[in-house]
Amino acid sequence: MATETVDIATLLGVLRERHPLVHNITNYVVMNSTANTLLALGASPIMAHAIEEVEELVDITGALVLNIGTLSKPWIDAMFHAGKHALIKRIPVVLDPVGAGATRFRTQTARELIQHVRPAILRGNASEILALGPEGAGGARGVDAQHGVALARQTAVTLARTFNMTVSVTGPEDYVTDGRREARIRNGHPLMARVTGTGCAVTAVTGAFAAVEPDAFRAAVASLVMYGMAGEWAAQRAQYPGSYAVALLDGLSALMPDDVRKGAKVEFSAAE
Amino acid sequence: MATETVDIATLLGVLRERHPLVHNITNYVVMNSTANTLLALGASPIMAHAIEEVEELVDITGALVLNIGTLSKPWIDAMFHAGKHALIKRIPVVLDPVGAGATRFRTQTARELIQHVRPAILRGNASEILALGPEGAGGARGVDAQHGVALARQTAVTLARTFNMTVSVTGPEDYVTDGRREARIRNGHPLMARVTGTGCAVTAVTGAFAAVEPDAFRAAVASLVMYGMAGEWAAQRAQYPGSYAVALLDGLSALMPDDVRKGAKVEFSAAE
Amino acid sequence: MATETVDIATLLGVLRERHPLVHNITNYVVMNSTANTLLALGASPIMAHAIEEVEELVDITGALVLNIGTLSKPWIDAMFHAGKHALIKRIPVVLDPVGAGATRFRTQTARELIQHVRPAILRGNASEILALGPEGAGGARGVDAQHGVALARQTAVTLARTFNMTVSVTGPEDYVTDGRREARIRNGHPLMARVTGTGCAVTAVTGAFAAVEPDAFRAAVASLVMYGMAGEWAAQRAQYPGSYAVALLDGLSALMPDDVRKGAKVEFSAAE
Repeated sequence: MATETVDIATLLGVLRERHPLVHNITNYVVMNSTANTLLALGASPIMAHAIEEVEELVDITGALVLNIGTLSKPWIDAMFHAGKHALIKRIPVVLDPVGAGATRFRTQTARELIQHVRPAILRGNASEILALGPEGAGGARGVDAQHGVALARQTAVTLARTFNMTVSVTGPEDYVTDGRREARIRNGHPLMARVTGTGCAVTAVTGAFAAVEPDAFRAAVASLVMYGMAGEWAAQRAQYPGSYAVALLDGLSALMPDDVRKGAKVEFSAAE
Repeated sequence: MATETVDIATLLGVLRERHPLVHNITNYVVMNSTANTLLALGASPIMAHAIEEVEELVDITGALVLNIGTLSKPWIDAMFHAGKHALIKRIPVVLDPVGAGATRFRTQTARELIQHVRPAILRGNASEILALGPEGAGGARGVDAQHGVALARQTAVTLARTFNMTVSVTGPEDYVTDGRREARIRNGHPLMARVTGTGCAVTAVTGAFAAVEPDAFRAAVASLVMYGMAGEWAAQRAQYPGSYAVALLDGLSALMPDDVRKGAKVEFSAAE
Repeated sequence: MATETVDIATLLGVLRERHPLVHNITNYVVMNSTANTLLALGASPIMAHAIEEVEELVDITGALVLNIGTLSKPWIDAMFHAGKHALIKRIPVVLDPVGAGATRFRTQTARELIQHVRPAILRGNASEILALGPEGAGGARGVDAQHGVALARQTAVTLARTFNMTVSVTGPEDYVTDGRREARIRNGHPLMARVTGTGCAVTAVTGAFAAVEPDAFRAAVASLVMYGMAGEWAAQRAQYPGSYAVALLDGLSALMPDDVRKGAKVEFSAAE
């Protein structure tokens, strides 16, 4: 495992060359900021949720991002519809279980999406991941992380092995595992938690990398490094949340492959 | 009444220590900016509207904000559902009757919400408040204020007494009454009217203060001072609407309890 | 035709004096940025989509903007409802067929809206316009323009003549025709394509100008010049997408009638 490595710089270069389409069925709060995140990074966003068209859009997309942030029945239908089609067409799906643990509705929907859509990557904070584990009755307080990333790791490994997926747990220190390999990422900045939708944004970024990197584990790691470094870049230019949100988008565009090669703070190991 | 006073500085300190959850059922236009407003201020936003989960969320929230800006039937159902549950659980509700007076649908919905949900605080512009008064056939032109705040004051007092709530009327000069006390607030800046959702944002800020201050009148006054001062802070840093919107968020975060203590422009009196 | 000219400076002055109401039934992604675009320009936005109220709102609006970006059944119903009412009341309708060509659902909806609502102006990119032409099976890749503006011109002229409307085709060079006159506009900047919703924004701006200028062709040309110049203004102040989006809004507010008179890059001719 000591030889595991992710060539983030090359991946970023490929992403910016291919401008992969990323289809998002996501929440109302972050639709605009997510689309701008993908554009700033170099990808091409599609946001669409109508049952009538999601399959056709999945057919042309490089990745499908499902985000349950402002859930309601018709949107859940669209997510299953699009997700099952993506599974058949082997399009990677990234699931963001926003607020899992906060209500039974969210926990249940996230569990069913994992079961039936089989996402390549599950990206949540520690509370959300804990709520989705076998033991998981852990009540999330809104969408904030209450439990340390450390506590969520065992759950992440279990989920990864049970569903043969990559689990990406974000927090002060990020953690990624596919049940076999694991990575700890220490890029990022505390101000990111003061801007709405940064979690959802890194999920969309994960979709963009998954569209160009078939190894889901590597795509997830690259995304966390990239977004975390944009957060660091922004912190050097802004100190308050409004201008920080603007600088975060700028950073996604300003960072060059060489920058991420030099600035990545990743540590790999084998999952126990 | 000369002794009435609101210790805004202390309230702001408490708010930033407790990070109260504020549950918003609000319009599509301002979901992102409202969430960012609450985060910048120091509160924690939840945006959710599904019938299936609003009660569970009300159970964990410090305040519920209802905003009828982009109304439709399922959202009205969710507002009544969440609102009635909040009433039972004694969670303060803040209602923003966006565009009341502009269409019968909005006026009617706002009236029914007041009647059945019994909000602690109603926050609108002069046109909207006038449209909700007993005489109120006053047609609002969109969501702009056509009538001076002065004209809306009598209606505010009547509404406050009839429904035992606080009414918060914003405009060039803001006015708050609970039917017994009244306050005039002269913080703010004309550029606030050039950014969409500033009215909705101050309603959400009112929810955040209501979560930490049980006296609804005081919570409403503190909110108008705080948001108005953020508007003043922003006007010193930006002169056009795009960068002004960014600076407004920055100001909510940058202002310290001591700043609001010094900058508050409030005048209290007894309602006639 | 050599004498055709649009007095954009005067139109902008009139717009800023009248603050025309523009009613938008638009997509979730751009609701906030569209409202801010209209406010920065000097117009007054209304966003509302409920069947119960769209007719009442059309009655007080200066223009109706329909945008199919995040389509679903209830929104289509609202668009037809509002659009047919606008047709009867002679309120100009501007249609943005976002993603036409990408799915049958979008292409079909856009075609039916053109047929039954008879928009004064159709504003799309080259792919979208091509997809709506008589021959149009041209598959759009998401909402990006794949085909050059040149290729879409013949389709634009055909559509303009068939439906007696103005067609506004945006891209590196913009093109407007009413089937008789045509204009080429070379204002704008490549960074505009890195911000989500700039196409939707220029459609809303077109609505604002259509509210004050009865000649749809002239309103469309003025809008493209104005928005393109805001893009140029922004490019002098920001180099990355996040801050560029902010500067774009600033530019809409900062540009004065004299600036657009001097900076307009328009060339008129007769359509063949």
